[in-house]
Amino acid sequence: MSYNQIIYTTAPSPAIDPSLTSGTFRLRTVPRPENVPARKVLVRVHYLSLDPAMRQWLTAKRSYIEPVKIGDVMRGQSIAQVVAVGSELRSKFEVGDWVTAYSGWQEYAVLGENAVEKVVIPPGGRPTDALSVLGMTGLTAYFGMLEVGQPRAGDTVVVSGAAGATGMVAGQIAKIKGAKRVVGLAGGRDKCDFLVKELGFDAAIDYKAPDWRKQLKEATPEYIDVYFDNVGGDILDACLARAARDSRFVICGAISQYNAAKPQGPTSFMNVISQRVTMKGFIVFDFAKQYPTALRDLASWLSQGKLKRKEHITPGGLRSAPKALVDLYGGANTGKMMIEVAPVSEALGAKSKL
Amino acid sequence: MSYNQIIYTTAPSPAIDPSLTSGTFRLRTVPRPENVPARKVLVRVHYLSLDPAMRQWLTAKRSYIEPVKIGDVMRGQSIAQVVAVGSELRSKFEVGDWVTAYSGWQEYAVLGENAVEKVVIPPGGRPTDALSVLGMTGLTAYFGMLEVGQPRAGDTVVVSGAAGATGMVAGQIAKIKGAKRVVGLAGGRDKCDFLVKELGFDAAIDYKAPDWRKQLKEATPEYIDVYFDNVGGDILDACLARAARDSRFVICGAISQYNAAKPQGPTSFMNVISQRVTMKGFIVFDFAKQYPTALRDLASWLSQGKLKRKEHITPGGLRSAPKALVDLYGGANTGKMMIEVAPVSEALGAKSKL
Repeated sequence: MSYNQIIYTTAPSPAIDPSLTSGTFRLRTVPRPENVPARKVLVRVHYLSLDPAMRQWLTAKRSYIEPVKIGDVMRGQSIAQVVAVGSELRSKFEVGDWVTAYSGWQEYAVLGENAVEKVVIPPGGRPTDALSVLGMTGLTAYFGMLEVGQPRAGDTVVVSGAAGATGMVAGQIAKIKGAKRVVGLAGGRDKCDFLVKELGFDAAIDYKAPDWRKQLKEATPEYIDVYFDNVGGDILDACLARAARDSRFVICGAISQYNAAKPQGPTSFMNVISQRVTMKGFIVFDFAKQYPTALRDLASWLSQGKLKRKEHITPGGLRSAPKALVDLYGGANTGKMMIEVAPVSEALGAKSKL
Repeated sequence: MSYNQIIYTTAPSPAIDPSLTSGTFRLRTVPRPENVPARKVLVRVHYLSLDPAMRQWLTAKRSYIEPVKIGDVMRGQSIAQVVAVGSELRSKFEVGDWVTAYSGWQEYAVLGENAVEKVVIPPGGRPTDALSVLGMTGLTAYFGMLEVGQPRAGDTVVVSGAAGATGMVAGQIAKIKGAKRVVGLAGGRDKCDFLVKELGFDAAIDYKAPDWRKQLKEATPEYIDVYFDNVGGDILDACLARAARDSRFVICGAISQYNAAKPQGPTSFMNVISQRVTMKGFIVFDFAKQYPTALRDLASWLSQGKLKRKEHITPGGLRSAPKALVDLYGGANTGKMMIEVAPVSEALGAKSKL
């Protein structure tokens, strides 16, 4: 028996090339191990998470995490099922367990116990939530909005990349916490309608509309108290120009700049001084000790219907991952972008557990 | 009797034109009032403060302070002497008192009591200190470094515009508070020598040297924990590229960008996220309630010789102000830039009080 892996082979220059024969990645087929080492589990990957941060993992610069090495399996998190357990881990895992796994881009993975975590799904939840609203993107939205942004009653909150997995949760949390006005920026009319009609944003601006700057101004008559930035570039700049006195700018991501050969900095920077803006970058890992509290809040809001989520699941198996990642930077998704590596119907007689 | 004023007449586009016949400002001669209104004082200006922020006061954009109106006397602070007191203020002021005054650019000014403050000079101080180390620039350095930057023992602190009135105090305060390493950026060898030899900076980098980026890297082997920014532009960008984890970037000024038609934003902005940088703008006025404590500290450090200062006083009277302001943006000064409007020798029989 063998399975497929996707190997990082060539540094992007600067955009990712999704071709599996001549691009950034290559497909490799390897044999499935006959025996699992004593302190490992063998998992089968079902859903692979695609995240904007991935482009940064391919840049050999000082960052919050080591870059992926050329020749390694591409890094990534997944929802997977345990299919074999090493002799010393049998008190902790059993065949059929569903886990979130730091599996990387491959169909199977042999992992130590620190690389997997059993999925606990709350009422109203589903397993893929553990990759999104109850996983890294939900936690990123939670800590970014509440610990960094700190919206107060009466605040105007603006979120960019608002129809993405993190942005949609961030905006809803601001609303749950009593922000007066939550405005989202997203690409295209459909995404904007979704934000206002489905998620309850007070306004949404299509940044592809020629007059988006004017719309942003009109949508923020009392300026911007909290800006949750997922995109950087022109939109960050336009929001800085609308910064309210003592505003908080949560620098979560800069998807518009990840593929730029020469990134663009915010030119309305003088407002940082005149309006006493605090711009703060953060990485969700720094809040690891508070994950349990955050997950309790997120699960409770989800169960109560206060927090809605959406998934964008690409079929086609592992080999569709590079193209889907490129599409993510193009804004193809509304909600959490995932690859279906293996459907749940193929699960090891344990479908009911998922 | 008459006196001169400098009137703001034409918006800079974008640089200030110092000509008094065809430039940004015009000279106007007005009669000295015969009688001072009951709740006013008449002051004679001796030293006029020139500050980088002045360029921003001439931009008709939302800012921390209303712009100067075309046709008004140019705004500015000075050291002045009271030469006449209105009938209802005689219990508070007497002729000969030295005051800091929101006089604007003129030789005499009729001011309400809120626009003047009596100068109190501590041991080892001199009256012009009330415009610099014991005035706005000293306070700006104090709150920016201690409240925003919060240097800790062991930190590497970098200050740009380090030979300017604010920068030199900011760097020395970091040293007083136990920073491990204080590095200044300034323009030219003389300023750099001054920082290291006179003020005790650990290193100084001449940003006009072709290899300044390399020097900055070498001078910050453990990266930058606190960056006190007076200049913006390329230097801010280079410091962001050297940001340490959880570093604080104090955004105090951006003198390199004030005259730019299209300001330049920091392109190493991704480091804000990966290194969890906090960038915070501030305005000294926000700390007004804490001025007394700050002035006590600053005066005490000055008296103990822990804090050194330097002045750059331009002779030539009021009409030299526009040219000196342009020179300030060119970096002509080491230390606090002031105009001698009237020498102390001409003071109203009260020289000994100054």
